Amino acid sequence: MQLVTQTKVTELPMGSILTPKGFRAAGVHAGLRYSKKDLGMILSDTPAQCAAVYTTSHFQAAPLIVTQESIASEGLIQAVIVNSACANACTGDQGLKDAYQMRKSAADKFNLKELHVAVASTGVIGEYMQMDKIEEGIKMLEPGNEALHSEDFQTAILTTDLVMKKCCYSAVIDGKTVTMGGSAKGSGMIHPNMATMLAFVTTDANIDSSDLQLALKQVTDQTFNQITVDGDTSTNDMVLVMANGTSGINKLSPDHPEWDVFIEMLSKTSESLAKQIAKDGEGATKLIEVEVSGTKSDDDARMIAKQIVGSNLVKTAIYGADANWGRIIGAIGQCQSAIDPSSVDIAIGPIVMLKNSEPLAFSEEVAKEYLSNAFIQITVYLHQGEGKGKAWGCDLSYDYVKINASYRT
Amino acid sequence: MQLVTQTKVTELPMGSILTPKGFRAAGVHAGLRYSKKDLGMILSDTPAQCAAVYTTSHFQAAPLIVTQESIASEGLIQAVIVNSACANACTGDQGLKDAYQMRKSAADKFNLKELHVAVASTGVIGEYMQMDKIEEGIKMLEPGNEALHSEDFQTAILTTDLVMKKCCYSAVIDGKTVTMGGSAKGSGMIHPNMATMLAFVTTDANIDSSDLQLALKQVTDQTFNQITVDGDTSTNDMVLVMANGTSGINKLSPDHPEWDVFIEMLSKTSESLAKQIAKDGEGATKLIEVEVSGTKSDDDARMIAKQIVGSNLVKTAIYGADANWGRIIGAIGQCQSAIDPSSVDIAIGPIVMLKNSEPLAFSEEVAKEYLSNAFIQITVYLHQGEGKGKAWGCDLSYDYVKINASYRT
Repeated sequence: MQLVTQTKVTELPMGSILTPKGFRAAGVHAGLRYSKKDLGMILSDTPAQCAAVYTTSHFQAAPLIVTQESIASEGLIQAVIVNSACANACTGDQGLKDAYQMRKSAADKFNLKELHVAVASTGVIGEYMQMDKIEEGIKMLEPGNEALHSEDFQTAILTTDLVMKKCCYSAVIDGKTVTMGGSAKGSGMIHPNMATMLAFVTTDANIDSSDLQLALKQVTDQTFNQITVDGDTSTNDMVLVMANGTSGINKLSPDHPEWDVFIEMLSKTSESLAKQIAKDGEGATKLIEVEVSGTKSDDDARMIAKQIVGSNLVKTAIYGADANWGRIIGAIGQCQSAIDPSSVDIAIGPIVMLKNSEPLAFSEEVAKEYLSNAFIQITVYLHQGEGKGKAWGCDLSYDYVKINASYRT
Repeated sequence: MQLVTQTKVTELPMGSILTPKGFRAAGVHAGLRYSKKDLGMILSDTPAQCAAVYTTSHFQAAPLIVTQESIASEGLIQAVIVNSACANACTGDQGLKDAYQMRKSAADKFNLKELHVAVASTGVIGEYMQMDKIEEGIKMLEPGNEALHSEDFQTAILTTDLVMKKCCYSAVIDGKTVTMGGSAKGSGMIHPNMATMLAFVTTDANIDSSDLQLALKQVTDQTFNQITVDGDTSTNDMVLVMANGTSGINKLSPDHPEWDVFIEMLSKTSESLAKQIAKDGEGATKLIEVEVSGTKSDDDARMIAKQIVGSNLVKTAIYGADANWGRIIGAIGQCQSAIDPSSVDIAIGPIVMLKNSEPLAFSEEVAKEYLSNAFIQITVYLHQGEGKGKAWGCDLSYDYVKINASYRT
């Protein structure tokens, strides 16, 4: 699939996970952290069709195992409950028991089936959950559908993120308005081991869990899987979508004439959250977008784009506003896909620096001025085919080292 | 092959590439750099059997193409000529022409066959060679076999390395002393695009080019290919071994009863140079050695070790002397080989922090004291088999960012 370029989807800048009909949310301070909210939930009025993707780490944290079990049961989730501060990862049998207990407590309080509840955690690896605080926190949760409630949730799932991450889009399908909202946390790591990306998407679209999973997988490969802050993969990453069908449209599936509109909406939601996470990477001063095209396949383009945006040398050059295209060559050169080294074009912003692998003269001053922006685009064209793809990341600054060299506290 | 643990090989701390009989060297200031020596050569009295390994980058620099042609001809090299300051990479047809001219000029001056000359370059990508200065420099080269001459060569190949890198070993084979010396440069990058690892090994062993290549490939996978400074691969990396046979031993081959002794000597030489390169990585304050064992294969162990030592999060934690084993779990977790997440042991120095995937209590103070050393060992045991391997790297400091964010000058 190509990235969608037509636009039948409208952004709702003031919207959130509560803009789709039939969802409520909450966030409270359960005492896992010193003062910040640390426990949140999203509740659907009815069980919602659900899809999720998870970290590929061998060390999947306990909540991911429990959530997978819930979704596998009927494909339905009515509530997701999330804590920050503790990742409940590398915690063995006790950790699994705690994750099950967290699910049960939420189910009991809101009269839900346990298998209709998903759980997620983010925080320090290798520490056990303070279950007494979790239990007390769950009792305090009073979900509502005001803007305040979505902000409470958005805040509760953050760890060292500097800003809340959310977005909202709508589209007309079957002549009716369908809405989708997203909330995410990124990979800040002031407290070591906190490296989790969590994203939650609500929608009132009507779609079965299996088709939703299909759509999510396709979109994730082009969005969430295309961001990198430091190349490290967390034990707790999860993206979860809940679709409760309250928009009243016909059931969506790949055969529906407006399936592409739904994919576009999910794609825009995912890309927006992914870019917000990259932009707020630890120590970041700039958001970097790399677009690669002219490859034999989209997979190749995405892989090369991610290699470039993940290169420490490219990241430090951009931090220093240095138009150092040789480092982009270095990153492309080590990719595993077949490349013709004699026909590479590279541009940083509007400035073409390499054309058919021949260096072009350019003004260092103009390049430096462009590289002083907060959003940097790198474009690579490889003259081999029709493949294309993007990746997003951030620069590598002194603050990245400062944040990650500090002691766990 | 396992890393050799028996020791029939003796280190000669004062030795160099000129300790093996029949080699001379030189290094001069040709004017490619402001003041430092920038052109060096090693000359064997007779054509030496030669083997080499090269960068896997798609963008192999021109000198690598020329050197491969020379070695492919008869497997013999009598001289290698090396410049710093300019990598002669991404320089198209002109660059190739320049590399051939550099080879011819050296051959002419020393009355050698052109195909017995190897060339190597390290420096900025995308700039053309100043051939007038190269030609003048070659005329100035007067190789000798004093300690001073090896130091001239060792200096001339450096870019932003802080220290010279060299070693020397000897062993008794066929009742005679065989000697091997090495010289290398690492991946300092104060001037952007300089990211080249070059290593040159001389020996008076008697061995055919094809068997030498076999030995070098085997040893490189366990040594040079197991170091990482920042995960980026240069366009110019090369390791070249010259064996001139003057020790008078019988011809070495895998059937020789003391083949293992030769492999051990080449392995120790390569490991010594590799560790010196890692230790002098840009901004480095500590050398990190990761040893992984208990894997299904040696390949798995080496891959996991390299993943750990290449993780920005592990590197920053060690810079900050923070015993953050969760980051080691993160790095292991994203490796592609099959891992049993329930049986992992991790130790930092002498302190076991995870045993069968259960966190152990340890003194943060004792751990911090250990992590304040300049040499840090991380040990991982995976309970799956007999595989083992090592990797080496350095910590990630403020200075890494400072060095790499600065403008090209």
